[in-house]
This record gives sequence, structure tokens and C-alpha cells, in this order.
Amino acid sequence: MNLQSVFDYTSPYAYLANTRLPGLDHPVEYLPVDILFVMKQIGNQPSPACPPKARYSGIDAARWAALYQVPFAPNRALFQAMREGRLDNALLVRLAVAAQQAGVFETLHPALFAAVWAGSDDLASTQGREAFLRNLELDADLWQLADSPHVRERLAANNALAIERGVFGVPTFFCDDEMFFGNDRLDFVRAAIAQSKGA
Amino acid sequence: MNLQSVFDYTSPYAYLANTRLPGLDHPVEYLPVDILFVMKQIGNQPSPACPPKARYSGIDAARWAALYQVPFAPNRALFQAMREGRLDNALLVRLAVAAQQAGVFETLHPALFAAVWAGSDDLASTQGREAFLRNLELDADLWQLADSPHVRERLAANNALAIERGVFGVPTFFCDDEMFFGNDRLDFVRAAIAQSKGA
Repeated sequence: MNLQSVFDYTSPYAYLANTRLPGLDHPVEYLPVDILFVMKQIGNQPSPACPPKARYSGIDAARWAALYQVPFAPNRALFQAMREGRLDNALLVRLAVAAQQAGVFETLHPALFAAVWAGSDDLASTQGREAFLRNLELDADLWQLADSPHVRERLAANNALAIERGVFGVPTFFCDDEMFFGNDRLDFVRAAIAQSKGA
Repeated sequence: MNLQSVFDYTSPYAYLANTRLPGLDHPVEYLPVDILFVMKQIGNQPSPACPPKARYSGIDAARWAALYQVPFAPNRALFQAMREGRLDNALLVRLAVAAQQAGVFETLHPALFAAVWAGSDDLASTQGREAFLRNLELDADLWQLADSPHVRERLAANNALAIERGVFGVPTFFCDDEMFFGNDRLDFVRAAIAQSKGA
């Protein structure tokens, strides 16, 4: 069975779910998408548009982090930079695409999720970005690759594929063609994996 | 600990969660609300506004019904009547408020949820509505009470209270002041109940 994880670093629930994927004991194919672009295309509304929902999400995500026993401390400076337009929301998923192309995704991916949701790394300045990659012993040129037309085209193709398959938010998981939305559906994903192994 | 269930009959997840409440083995205070009104007031978007999300919700709700081993067969004629404006969305929650005032809520409530999400009862015509109550051995006048100013005022007060407490969808549960949104948060509710009993 093919297990695909559709994600964006800007989602706390994608971060939480990502911490559980190694425990599934099944290979995962990762599809980075620009979820704000996807939601806009299909008429879905992001949580920040509804203040009571956004407030609750923060509390709820912290509850899941406690349950999973993983750190949860949103990188406030990073989100501030995104809100102020100093950082393109999609840059981080483009970095993931670049890392896939450079063959260093396994190193980058969990570290980047942790930097966004459980760290204070400076990802808004050029210096900070280079330091982030240096600490992972990755080539700083990955940021340039993330800005290349080739990576931008690949992300656009990922977004289009996600929309075609019915994605309206992240994290979304596909077990072959069965779709599961949300960190809170990992039990269903686990059951689908178990069923595929029993069959 | 006070356990409050905020619900509307138009939500499949409120139906699913409601089938589990007896299993919590804790008294429940029921707050009927007109969730479409609440969502509009606070800027939340109902699922039907995003077709891929609405499609997925149907599949996902059926998965939960299978997990819970409860019937799930949306009353299509009822929703068609609501879409066509032949039936006020809020009439069913007003009937719940009327049943609370008449002291027959315990009889009406599970039967009404079942009629909406696992039945084909005619709730759109006057005759059908009266037959529905007759089958429950309830007084047909409950429908008139549901239309009374007193019940309408009470529902408006419920909506205002829900908004004040941060409700943005149903089902929502309050364990004293802790809020939990969604059928998929019942495990958290269960843990809060257990903790309150241990304390």
C-alpha cells in the first residue's frame, strides 16, 4: 500500500502528525504543498479567518502535543515575519521540494517542522536561514534551489495534484486512494496499514 | 464537574458524538443551538461552502459510524426540504428547547437525532411531524411550542451563550470551562471526566 503524507510546515496539526509517522512503521511518500494556495483555490477558509476557531486550535494543538509528549512552542518571530510579508509562506515548502531534489529531505524535514513549531530558529533573515542549514550540515545553496523555477514548477504541480485528489487542508494522508484528513485521523491510517498487511 | 454538550441536529458529527454520551457515565447538560446562525455571527464557514470538504465529511462520518457500530443514513428528503426553504434549519433545535421546557427532552432528543441521520421520517410536512411525535407518544403540540416566542427567545439566549464561550461549531463539549470541539475529541472529554473523578 502506498502511504502519502500531504503537508505544509505552516500547520500545527501537520507538525503533530509528522512526529507520529515514524511510529507507523510503513514507508511514507511526502507531498509538500502550499496549503494556503490550495485552500484559496477550492474555497476553503483558513483558521485565522475565524478568531474563536484559531484560539481553540492553539489550545487543542497544545493538548495533542502533551498527549504525544512532543515539544510545542510556535516560532512567533517566524509567523510575525510571514504576517508582515517579510517571508513568503510558501518558501518553507519550496525548501522541502528542493531538499527532495537534492536528496537531503530526510535530514531537512523533521528539523524544519521542529524549527517552526518547537523552536526559535531565525528563518526570516538570510543569515539565519544559512545558519539553520549549516547546523544540519546541509549546503546553504538549498535556499537558492528553493527559489528556482524548477522547484516552483514542482510545487505548482504538487498543489494541482492535491486539489485533483480532493485535498482541502493539511495534514492529509492517502492510503492508496483512501483519503484521511487531520492529525486526529491517524488511527484510521494505522488501521488501513494494518489491513493492507493482513490482506 | 459540569459536562455540557452544545449541539444542533444538522451536524452528522453531533449525531455521532451523541450516540457515545451515555457511555461516558456522567450527567450531561444539553445546550441546543442554531449552529448556522452562530457560525455566521463569528465568521466561520459551514462545510457545504467548500465542496471537497463536504464530500470528505460524508465519507469520514460514515467511517465513524462504522467504528461506533451505529446506523448512518442521512435523511435526504429532510435536507432537501431545508435547502429548498420548506423547513427552517432551526426548527429542530427549537423543538429540542420546547422538549426541555415540557420535560420530555430525554425521549425526544435521541429519536430526533436518529430521524435526521439514520432514518427517513417525514419532518417536512405537518402530518409527518405530528406522526413523528405520536410515534414517540409525545404531544403534537410540541411543534407549536417550538414556534412560540418564549422558545425562540431561549434559543437566541443559547446562541449568545455559545458565542460568548467561544463555540464555532458542533458538537462542542464543556468540561466546566474547558472546551472540546468535535466528535473526535471525546477521548479528551473522557479523560477530563476521569480526572475530575480522581480529584
